[in-house]
Amino acid sequence: MIIVLKPQATKEDADRILSRIEALGLKTLYMPGSERTVLGAIGDERVIAQLHLENDPLVEGVKPILAPYKLVSREVHSHDTIVDVGGVLVGGERFVVFAGPCAIESHAQALETCQHVKAAGAHGMRGGAYKPRTSPYSFQDLGREGLRILQEVSNELDLPAVTEVVQVRDVEAVAEHAAAFQIGARNMQNYGLLKAIGQSKTPAILKRGMAASADDLLMAAEYILSEGNPNVILCERGIKTFETATRNTLDLNVIPYLKQRSHLPVIVDPSHGTGVRDFVTPMAKAAAACGADGILVEVHHDPSAALSDGFQSLTPEMFQTLMRELRPVVEAVGRTL
Amino acid sequence: MIIVLKPQATKEDADRILSRIEALGLKTLYMPGSERTVLGAIGDERVIAQLHLENDPLVEGVKPILAPYKLVSREVHSHDTIVDVGGVLVGGERFVVFAGPCAIESHAQALETCQHVKAAGAHGMRGGAYKPRTSPYSFQDLGREGLRILQEVSNELDLPAVTEVVQVRDVEAVAEHAAAFQIGARNMQNYGLLKAIGQSKTPAILKRGMAASADDLLMAAEYILSEGNPNVILCERGIKTFETATRNTLDLNVIPYLKQRSHLPVIVDPSHGTGVRDFVTPMAKAAAACGADGILVEVHHDPSAALSDGFQSLTPEMFQTLMRELRPVVEAVGRTL
Amino acid sequence: MIIVLKPQATKEDADRILSRIEALGLKTLYMPGSERTVLGAIGDERVIAQLHLENDPLVEGVKPILAPYKLVSREVHSHDTIVDVGGVLVGGERFVVFAGPCAIESHAQALETCQHVKAAGAHGMRGGAYKPRTSPYSFQDLGREGLRILQEVSNELDLPAVTEVVQVRDVEAVAEHAAAFQIGARNMQNYGLLKAIGQSKTPAILKRGMAASADDLLMAAEYILSEGNPNVILCERGIKTFETATRNTLDLNVIPYLKQRSHLPVIVDPSHGTGVRDFVTPMAKAAAACGADGILVEVHHDPSAALSDGFQSLTPEMFQTLMRELRPVVEAVGRTL
Amino acid sequence: MIIVLKPQATKEDADRILSRIEALGLKTLYMPGSERTVLGAIGDERVIAQLHLENDPLVEGVKPILAPYKLVSREVHSHDTIVDVGGVLVGGERFVVFAGPCAIESHAQALETCQHVKAAGAHGMRGGAYKPRTSPYSFQDLGREGLRILQEVSNELDLPAVTEVVQVRDVEAVAEHAAAFQIGARNMQNYGLLKAIGQSKTPAILKRGMAASADDLLMAAEYILSEGNPNVILCERGIKTFETATRNTLDLNVIPYLKQRSHLPVIVDPSHGTGVRDFVTPMAKAAAACGADGILVEVHHDPSAALSDGFQSLTPEMFQTLMRELRPVVEAVGRTL
Repeated sequence: MIIVLKPQATKEDADRILSRIEALGLKTLYMPGSERTVLGAIGDERVIAQLHLENDPLVEGVKPILAPYKLVSREVHSHDTIVDVGGVLVGGERFVVFAGPCAIESHAQALETCQHVKAAGAHGMRGGAYKPRTSPYSFQDLGREGLRILQEVSNELDLPAVTEVVQVRDVEAVAEHAAAFQIGARNMQNYGLLKAIGQSKTPAILKRGMAASADDLLMAAEYILSEGNPNVILCERGIKTFETATRNTLDLNVIPYLKQRSHLPVIVDPSHGTGVRDFVTPMAKAAAACGADGILVEVHHDPSAALSDGFQSLTPEMFQTLMRELRPVVEAVGRTL
Repeated sequence: MIIVLKPQATKEDADRILSRIEALGLKTLYMPGSERTVLGAIGDERVIAQLHLENDPLVEGVKPILAPYKLVSREVHSHDTIVDVGGVLVGGERFVVFAGPCAIESHAQALETCQHVKAAGAHGMRGGAYKPRTSPYSFQDLGREGLRILQEVSNELDLPAVTEVVQVRDVEAVAEHAAAFQIGARNMQNYGLLKAIGQSKTPAILKRGMAASADDLLMAAEYILSEGNPNVILCERGIKTFETATRNTLDLNVIPYLKQRSHLPVIVDPSHGTGVRDFVTPMAKAAAACGADGILVEVHHDPSAALSDGFQSLTPEMFQTLMRELRPVVEAVGRTL
Repeated sequence: MIIVLKPQATKEDADRILSRIEALGLKTLYMPGSERTVLGAIGDERVIAQLHLENDPLVEGVKPILAPYKLVSREVHSHDTIVDVGGVLVGGERFVVFAGPCAIESHAQALETCQHVKAAGAHGMRGGAYKPRTSPYSFQDLGREGLRILQEVSNELDLPAVTEVVQVRDVEAVAEHAAAFQIGARNMQNYGLLKAIGQSKTPAILKRGMAASADDLLMAAEYILSEGNPNVILCERGIKTFETATRNTLDLNVIPYLKQRSHLPVIVDPSHGTGVRDFVTPMAKAAAACGADGILVEVHHDPSAALSDGFQSLTPEMFQTLMRELRPVVEAVGRTL
Repeated sequence: MIIVLKPQATKEDADRILSRIEALGLKTLYMPGSERTVLGAIGDERVIAQLHLENDPLVEGVKPILAPYKLVSREVHSHDTIVDVGGVLVGGERFVVFAGPCAIESHAQALETCQHVKAAGAHGMRGGAYKPRTSPYSFQDLGREGLRILQEVSNELDLPAVTEVVQVRDVEAVAEHAAAFQIGARNMQNYGLLKAIGQSKTPAILKRGMAASADDLLMAAEYILSEGNPNVILCERGIKTFETATRNTLDLNVIPYLKQRSHLPVIVDPSHGTGVRDFVTPMAKAAAACGADGILVEVHHDPSAALSDGFQSLTPEMFQTLMRELRPVVEAVGRTL
């Protein structure tokens, strides 16, 4: 850790801070400069953090050398983690596709949509039983009934299902009915929920928050791993920027970044990432091309009747096209679909 | 509501959509143009929303005329709402100041800090018993024990206390120990929590999310009001932008915007908004100058020993200066401190 | 155009505005609602714009139906434009690659680097003679001497060259020495420069500004076309967001958006877009996968000695890898490299 | 400067880098750690910059200790600079107000508007002769004729005038007709223009770019000072963020930041900063409260007839109110209006 002192800090001020660091058993360095004095602390930065040197009125800034996360880091665990979602291996040689409706509306709707996605070659299904809705006046979710339908359709089609969990009290029920949790963008820093999922063994797809940096996403994953659940799949789904041509700005740059920094699998949600039906297929192909391990896509058997997010849902025909166009791109990067 | 059709939409397509709207009992308008046909629907937009016209493949876009919120709107309720927080009236003639430590660390710490803030003229105290922390390795909170300390110090000093609630299961306990809930930026769209608070009578300070627009904040407030709790105080606390000179970008522009659109009181948190101790006082004065109803400020009796957010906490001396410098500004805008 | 009136506007206010619109020969619509009156104006929105209705104190907002650009729009010109850059056709079946050093440092440097890029299969070369530099203390450019070197190397290798122009007074000289102008992100709204280039016949690569929306980019292109130069290539090169893992956030979502709205070719600059050498190849492949027409890449024969942007420049070996990995992706989307 | 090496860097790699630094006559430090080796270089960072260590493939990152600007820095020049704009002192005890139309439309318009602003107490006038316009189809400017009118009105009313310059070729003419240049947000990094203005003696109001950080603004000012012109006034005018309630997000947080880092005066443009007429007065008061040295405001004698930016222009009556409400706030922070 590098500690930059304010110009007015004296040699005595520096000594005071250095002895606090040395008291923790760490080695230190003193670098007086012409305009600023800089101190160095060599050793575990997580130990030095407890000194809260950034609070010191004579400290101008503290520059950590190491990332604040550890368990998710590729330095600690160099080979790729493969997460098993009901038999679908995420993070391995196969590029995986989870598809289905935004929300579970009825058994008939979920079944018809997921029959289509299975026929087109999807490896798993998605469908929301618990939905965070921006307006209290919008369609609200089916809850437990939706979970039950999800599991029935999953069993009927032999297609593992992933679904969002939004409250701690539903963690157990979701784990019973689905093959993986989704943690939505709005809950990426809901630490109570992260801890509860960390105490489960069920895999979790952790979506990046709309104002979260890639490092914030890795810190949120660290919460889950630090509680004992290693089965985390990171998911890029778009961030908030000034651009309004798309609902969010899908940030594919973080795919190579996350793969470089972490051993966890990374998937992409081009439906929420763009919010525009016509852009889902090109961005799914781009995700495959830059190294993502899979995608999560919204499909509805009749989008114009969908109760939520219909405008970004693919029709069954569009999803077939996506799968057909995706295959050569996936193979071009040496993987299989 | 205005519905813009795609260039390829025919007269028949327009008629089909118009008859769906008329079937809801609404009046419609047909406006064929040289490049696009535009349809109008006159009446309650919340009724039309159920048609999900944005899902229609021949619809280019849907432009609502009215805001999606109603109960929080000044059009529905034109005079200012005043919220009573343990006897402190927020939204009236007085500019209110809630101050105290970021986190409750111990009874001694909370008491000493809050004695200072009371002596300097604060109207209420703040202090976190439940704290969302970005790193699982940072100081975690005292929880119920923290709530108990908060209430004791509040009683000893006769200073109403506000504190954050992060989980539905803690709503009741927080309501028992504090005069108002704080809903943190990370939970602004935690709809389960918003609903639970909406079913309480205890006032709530609702902080704007880091990626939330002013309208998103009003929609989140609508959730609480729609469940029956009218005692909501909006709080600007900084948004995520590219600027790194400050921890967040405190967006004071939304103060006049929120006051124009809504009858709810609006306060400002310059501590999180800037994340820099030296900028808290100038931004507190700016908040008062542009029409905010109060501020929420982090103070610590010994910031260099603070277990969280010490770098943005004021010392007791700095807080005295803030109060001294704030008074003439508050009076300059015709209010009292 | 849709004009939403403020709640207090009367029937008389509406009539006054309607008659101003009708005086221009346009048809109008009057839509009184329960909460707002809405007016419609049918006809050329560029004509109505001269009324500046948005200035009227009783107008709440004006919602245009049509995009503000015309010549760049696919509605006006439905087939893809192909721009000829010194014999390299951009926007057609071939995915084009322009590569070379950030800045021209010397004849030896430019020649050695561009020999490598040609050998690896690039179709054109790039190299900066005029460079906008953020710091007055950084390496400044070679100017006219750089232009001369660029042209010599271009001739020696028979590789068309593109290069940035930053001032109106250099437009003519750049047109003489290079096959295409680059207009940098910082100059996307330098309207004097856009007009001067519009009066030239030399093709122009127009880079998106760091705070410019996709529509802002199209409006900037409209400036050039409206002056008579139809040879514009749009270039995505990253926008400014809160994310700091990459230098900018390369926004590939705009590729399908720009292709849908405009007939102009679109290329991508993954070097500036990410600012990280290791991410250039994955993002180049993603650009090809989502429909871009080519890329602009920084390569240096010895990046550790580069005088500018060395950290994001590829070595010749890395560029060979990029070309080798790019080919199957380009072919997977039905194009050639 | 701190240089963090990649994990695979050996002792020999470190030695190689250290000897390059020492060859420049600087002192170095070697800090091997358990996970990373860190190097320190003590001395003028602008000298080390020429080594381009960030280009080295074994360097993970370079962390400068000092700001990249020098002449604008308060460390080099600790007392406040006061800039004389035609007799109006900016940066001193008086809070200064420059007001007038967005664009000069005619002598009558400029005179009538500026008579009003003078009567209300403004210290200087503004008015655009050269205007960058986003659309080629919008009103274009009067150019030289506009400059002439500006000077006439300035003389008639004895009110110093500031006006934008957008091209190097107009620098001399603007200096002859106006008391200060304005450099618009879109030109903040037009380095040719910055250099030309740096070679003038006329004061310059430098507006922050929409994607520029506070440090980018200071670097742009450094360009002007480094060419010999010390008369620079910084101007905050809003940045691009996801928020659309206001046209831009006026970022008042940078006022205390810029005052802390630099000795240059700082003013605020609440007209462009918000883009909403009703928010100009509250934000002007906020600017005064947090330490700005003045404001730049758009006023039009008849905004509904304005040819540009009418929606954000104040009427003469609104400007009177602004001045009346501003005075007590300015006095509350110990200054005069």
